[in-house]
Amino acid sequence: MKRRLLLVSNSTLHGSGYLDHCEHNISHFFGKDVKRVLFVPYALHNRDAYTKTARDKFKTLGYEVDSIHKAADPVDAVRKAEAIFIGGGNTFRLLKSLYDNKVVTEIRRRVLEVRPLSAHLPAPNVATISINTTNDMPIVYPPSFSAIGLVPFNINPHYLDPDPNSRHMGETREQRITQYHEEPDTPCVLGLREGSMLLVEGNKATLLGTTKARLFTRGKSSVEYDPGSDLSVLLTDAQ
Amino acid sequence: MKRRLLLVSNSTLHGSGYLDHCEHNISHFFGKDVKRVLFVPYALHNRDAYTKTARDKFKTLGYEVDSIHKAADPVDAVRKAEAIFIGGGNTFRLLKSLYDNKVVTEIRRRVLEVRPLSAHLPAPNVATISINTTNDMPIVYPPSFSAIGLVPFNINPHYLDPDPNSRHMGETREQRITQYHEEPDTPCVLGLREGSMLLVEGNKATLLGTTKARLFTRGKSSVEYDPGSDLSVLLTDAQ
Ligand SMILES: [Ca+2]
Ligand SMILES: [Ca+2]
Repeated sequence: MKRRLLLVSNSTLHGSGYLDHCEHNISHFFGKDVKRVLFVPYALHNRDAYTKTARDKFKTLGYEVDSIHKAADPVDAVRKAEAIFIGGGNTFRLLKSLYDNKVVTEIRRRVLEVRPLSAHLPAPNVATISINTTNDMPIVYPPSFSAIGLVPFNINPHYLDPDPNSRHMGETREQRITQYHEEPDTPCVLGLREGSMLLVEGNKATLLGTTKARLFTRGKSSVEYDPGSDLSVLLTDAQ
Repeated sequence: MKRRLLLVSNSTLHGSGYLDHCEHNISHFFGKDVKRVLFVPYALHNRDAYTKTARDKFKTLGYEVDSIHKAADPVDAVRKAEAIFIGGGNTFRLLKSLYDNKVVTEIRRRVLEVRPLSAHLPAPNVATISINTTNDMPIVYPPSFSAIGLVPFNINPHYLDPDPNSRHMGETREQRITQYHEEPDTPCVLGLREGSMLLVEGNKATLLGTTKARLFTRGKSSVEYDPGSDLSVLLTDAQ
């Protein structure tokens, strides 16, 4: 399997600009062969403005950007793309638009099968089995919570440790993921803290970035991984 | 319309026990005529344990608790209830179970039409138009985000003001509600901070509790309301 994915916890780190913290990862990931990147702006309301932001940033890295929302046939745009970049924002809105535009299956096919497509996703939930572990507000109702399914686990982006000084009584992130694992047959959840990303190449997965990640497995204790860790075990269906 | 609802932001306040912060509101709300309360524990996984917690607390206030999950016929249990108490937890799990058990319509009918049922809801999202503005993780997929519809607006419970010292880049609560209002024809959202609750009696709504609430209206600036404020305007369909 030739898939190449870069699953990023967040597009912007505190105190820096859009994609600044992962720009060297982007250049390294897309490399010199890619000239044009297909951008998916569905996660934000103002698609034109979002495309301009992405286009300006990618230009500084040497890539041209075409936005899928301007394509006459979105499925054909995916079919012909050299590389794809799915922008973050609201996961429910993004997934609903991917279904509305009928591109879920085509993205999966392009990444996992023929003529592999490098996919860069600061919207990592849509790349996983399902969006069940997003932090976003369910502002629209997608036809399913099943996502593109490029990897056989789930991700919790912007993962946050419990704040011992908090007086707020909303559930902690860990409690929410534990509630998810109370449901039967639920897969692993990788808690990606801000600044962290997962590079997937074929059947190899590597944790990149500057922060540790926490892996939650149903019925087991959670485990911390340092940047640089090999997380290929996540890619076997049996976990 | 004879509806009587107490919509509560949260079941537990920091430093106090389950329902302690609103126990006098509960006693005042159910009064002396109610003897037995029908408890809905669907929002948590361990329904027996949750029922015991609720039963122990309600006993100290002088009420017996029957849990809907032990009823042979949940719809009949709603039909015959004197009063209902829907516990908080995960809103997606709660709403899915309400649909699975076919009680959404019967609760609406009992609260809004015949032989009015007093409903106490520390799970306020299910009482509103939809669960689109819950903070919970979407751990299960309900057949719809449409909720019981006892009031014609939405609620964001555990409402949090932006933290100026935060370095976390997840969207603030205000940004999330703004994203909801980017969608067409979306209703008002009442941000209920922890410690706050809304009493609805017929066509009158009053903010109770110890904290202010923030009202978000599509296309307008948000407005703060003090405890004691009359919010009956929220109950007119035209907002
Ligand atoms: Ca997001
Ligand atoms: Ca909750």
